[in-house]
Amino acid sequence: MTAEDADATLSGLGEFAVIDRLVAGRRQPPFVTLGPGDDAAVVAARDGRTVVCTDMLVENRHFRLDWSSPHDVGRKAIAQNAADIEAMGARSTAFVVGFGAPGDTPTAHAVELADGMWHEADLVGAGIVGGDTVKAPLWVISVAALGDLDGRQPVPRDGAQPGDVVAVAGELGRSQAGYTLWDRALPGFDELRSRHLVPRPPYGQGAAAARAGATAMTDVSDGLLADLGHIATSSGVHIDIARDALRPEVDAVADAASRTGADPLQWVLGGGEDHALVATFPGTVPSGWRAIGIVVAGRPGVTVDGDTWAGNAGWQSF
Amino acid sequence: MTAEDADATLSGLGEFAVIDRLVAGRRQPPFVTLGPGDDAAVVAARDGRTVVCTDMLVENRHFRLDWSSPHDVGRKAIAQNAADIEAMGARSTAFVVGFGAPGDTPTAHAVELADGMWHEADLVGAGIVGGDTVKAPLWVISVAALGDLDGRQPVPRDGAQPGDVVAVAGELGRSQAGYTLWDRALPGFDELRSRHLVPRPPYGQGAAAARAGATAMTDVSDGLLADLGHIATSSGVHIDIARDALRPEVDAVADAASRTGADPLQWVLGGGEDHALVATFPGTVPSGWRAIGIVVAGRPGVTVDGDTWAGNAGWQSF
Repeated sequence: MTAEDADATLSGLGEFAVIDRLVAGRRQPPFVTLGPGDDAAVVAARDGRTVVCTDMLVENRHFRLDWSSPHDVGRKAIAQNAADIEAMGARSTAFVVGFGAPGDTPTAHAVELADGMWHEADLVGAGIVGGDTVKAPLWVISVAALGDLDGRQPVPRDGAQPGDVVAVAGELGRSQAGYTLWDRALPGFDELRSRHLVPRPPYGQGAAAARAGATAMTDVSDGLLADLGHIATSSGVHIDIARDALRPEVDAVADAASRTGADPLQWVLGGGEDHALVATFPGTVPSGWRAIGIVVAGRPGVTVDGDTWAGNAGWQSF
Repeated sequence: MTAEDADATLSGLGEFAVIDRLVAGRRQPPFVTLGPGDDAAVVAARDGRTVVCTDMLVENRHFRLDWSSPHDVGRKAIAQNAADIEAMGARSTAFVVGFGAPGDTPTAHAVELADGMWHEADLVGAGIVGGDTVKAPLWVISVAALGDLDGRQPVPRDGAQPGDVVAVAGELGRSQAGYTLWDRALPGFDELRSRHLVPRPPYGQGAAAARAGATAMTDVSDGLLADLGHIATSSGVHIDIARDALRPEVDAVADAASRTGADPLQWVLGGGEDHALVATFPGTVPSGWRAIGIVVAGRPGVTVDGDTWAGNAGWQSF
C-alpha cells in the first residue's frame, strides 16, 4: 500500500490526520472564542442563555448514500438541527458533530460531508466548532446545535391561544414528493427530488416570528398535522387548518403527485422533513409567513376544514 | 400481542411514549430554563460563554452489552464528555443525547441507560436537557456537553511553558487493566473491571486547576503519553515524565498485570479511557494533584526518565 492509498480511507489516514483534513481552512464566525482542536470549544453566549438541541441521522434510515451525496447528507444534518433552533425563535451560533463510519470510507467522502455541513452552517452564520470521528459499521451522524435568543423569550410549543392565527414559513410536502419520486425511481422533477435530500428551512423566520409575538412555534419535521398536534396538545387548544390556504403548497407538488398516483394534499398535510416553521400569532402574521388556519378553544386536536384528516398524519421514529 | 408486550420494546411503545418514559420524573438543575419537550432546551450561561464538546460511542467498539449494563454505558457516555469539559477548566451544566438502537431493544434497557446518564450527570450537578431517539442496527450514543467557565479563562492545550510542573488528578491504567481482565475472561479484580466500564473523572479538579493557574490541560482519553504528546506538540515544548512518580499508579494495577503477564507501567503510560486530568502548572500543584514530570524547552515530544517509551503510547479511533 502506498502512502497515497493509505490516505484514501479513514483507517489508512488515522483519526488525527482525518480531523486535520476536516478542520483545515474553515473560517469560524467571530463569536467562536475557541474553535476545534482542544478538549472542547468556547462560544460566546451574549444573551446569557444557550439554546441547545440534537438530532441523530442513521444511514439507510434517514439518508441513503445511493440517493444523497455526502455533501447533501452534511447539509441535511445541519439544516434539521438549525430548524429546531429557529423554532425556538433563536439563531444558530455553533454546531458540534459526531461522525461514525466504516474504516474503508474514502477520506474524500468525509471531507465532502464536512463541506456540506459548512455550506449549510454558513447559510445561518454559525460555525462547526468541534466533533468526534469514530469507527462504525455504517454512517451515523449526530449533530448538536447551540443558539442565541438575542434577549428574546424562547417561543415554546405550549403557548397557543384561542383566537391566534396559524401560519407557516417555508415549504411543505416537497420532501415527501421527492421521497416518493426517488422510491419509485421516477425521472424528472429534479427540484423536488433535491428537496428530499436537502431541506430548505426558512432561516431567520424563527427570530422574525418571535419578534412578531408568536405564542407557539415548531418546525415541521414529522408532518404538518403531527407537528401542529404537538402544539395543540401542549397548549390545550384545537387547531383548524383551511384546505384552501394550502392551495399553493398543493399546486407545487400536484404534477409529481399526479405522476405517482398520490394525493398531493396528503403530502402537504402528512409529509415531514421539509423543516418549514409553523407558528401561532395573536395578531398580524409577519412578512414571509402565510396564514393557514386558526386556533380555537376545544378538545386538543387538529382538523382540516373542521374534519379529522383520514390520511396519515406523520412519521414515527420507531 | 398484548399492550404490555408492545410496551416492552422501543418499536412497540413508539418514539413519543419512549421519550416520555426517559424524561419522566427527572429533576433539572435550577439553571436549566427550559428542559426537554420542546424543539430545543434553554440553559443559563451566566458567564456569557458556553463550553461545548461531543463524543460518540458505538456498540462493540466503545462498549459491549455483554460486559456493560445499560446503566454503565450511560454513565460512561456522560463521564467522558464531562471530562472534556473539566479539561477546559469548566463545569458541566447540561447534556443532550442522541440514542440509536434496534426496534426490539427492551424499553427497560433504554430507561436503564437514561438512569445511568442521570446518575453521572448528578455527580457533576448538570441536567440532561434534550435528545433524539432513532432506530439503528446497533446501539449508538452521542452526547454533547455544555459547560460554564464561571468567569475564568479556558485552559487550552497549547499553553505549557518550560519550567512548568506536569501533574495528574484522577486514575491512570485502571481502564486498560479492566479491559485486559474482561478480554481474557479472568475472574476477580472487580474494582478494576468496573473501572473499564465506568471511568471516574476527578470532577471539580478541572476548575481547581484553572484557579491554580494551570497553563495547559487535557483529559487522559487516549493514553497518558499520547495525550501529553498533544500538549507537547501544541505548546512546542518537551515533557519528561518521572517513572518513580508513577509508582502509586503502577502499584494499583500491579497484581492484575502480574496475573495477565502484562507490564503495569505500559498500562499506566499507554492505557486510555480513565479520563484522569493532566495539566501543567507554573507554580505549586494544587491539592488533589500529583506531580509526575516537568516541561522543558526542546523538540516537542514526551519521554520517560529522559528516554523515548518503546511501548504503545495510546489509542487511535480508526
